[in-house]
Amino acid sequence: MKQLLVKRNVFALVIVAAVAASYIGPAYGQATHEAAPIFLKEIPPGYRDWKVISVAHEEGNLNSLGAILGNDLAIKAYREGDLPFPDGTIIAALHYSHTSSEENNKVFGRSQSFVPGAPTNIQFMVKDSKKYAATTGWGFGHFANGRSADEAFMKTCFPCHNQVKARDLVFTRYAP
Amino acid sequence: MKQLLVKRNVFALVIVAAVAASYIGPAYGQATHEAAPIFLKEIPPGYRDWKVISVAHEEGNLNSLGAILGNDLAIKAYREGDLPFPDGTIIAALHYSHTSSEENNKVFGRSQSFVPGAPTNIQFMVKDSKKYAATTGWGFGHFANGRSADEAFMKTCFPCHNQVKARDLVFTRYAP
Repeated sequence: MKQLLVKRNVFALVIVAAVAASYIGPAYGQATHEAAPIFLKEIPPGYRDWKVISVAHEEGNLNSLGAILGNDLAIKAYREGDLPFPDGTIIAALHYSHTSSEENNKVFGRSQSFVPGAPTNIQFMVKDSKKYAATTGWGFGHFANGRSADEAFMKTCFPCHNQVKARDLVFTRYAP
Repeated sequence: MKQLLVKRNVFALVIVAAVAASYIGPAYGQATHEAAPIFLKEIPPGYRDWKVISVAHEEGNLNSLGAILGNDLAIKAYREGDLPFPDGTIIAALHYSHTSSEENNKVFGRSQSFVPGAPTNIQFMVKDSKKYAATTGWGFGHFANGRSADEAFMKTCFPCHNQVKARDLVFTRYAP
């Protein structure tokens, strides 16, 4: 009888968990779909092998040295000056701490060389005009240590990028 | 008679030019082969499509923002920690002037953003243990506006790079 009760309780827990999951799922999706810009939950695969769009250095709090890469659709659009970017475009910004290279400076005989230190974050912009219609077709991603930033943080991406409408919300220009 | 003289003179000039060219050719090759590190005369094709090794920022006179790219052999060697680099390795450093981005700063509300300005030069290291035996297997290239730097300039590459023997003469480390 005791065993039967345990079994019943386990069964009940599974049911409760399943119902809760099915309830939380759509409700969460609904909320991000309507109220907030949709953002990436997973890192697009293969991005580290993509071609270079440009490089960047940010001073201040960011203190960042970065490589901006693009998948083939992104590179093609950049090279052909094709705006807006087509669906399927993905742009990746790999950021590292802007770090003085003591080993390089030693050889050069002066303090002048800065290199990527620890990775700080990887950001993505994914173009999908249907999925990300609420944010003019762009989905944003921000990952640190493989984990996405929270929803509050992700809400700040679109309003800032939306200030460069003339460049289809993309700050980075192509470096020849 | 006058026409014949002109013809003769033109013929003589052609002969002189041909002899001079055949003399200068090998002598120049000989000089670089024996006395100076051999350097690249032509830009390796396709380098702009290569994968990223890292990025770099140099202050001082260089005032440079750069992308360091590698062909497939270079990338494989970096990722596998395989030193010395194998024959066929090519590393490209694309340098641009380190330039404040007024258009980005306007959006950010502060002066923090630096981007590639005009291209300054492209540098290459090519591994060929036979061809570049005199410089421990590395051939160096430096091109500005598509033209190679002169021999005096190119002689400065090897002694500087030779100070990082432990890294097979390559300054750049791989950025994850």
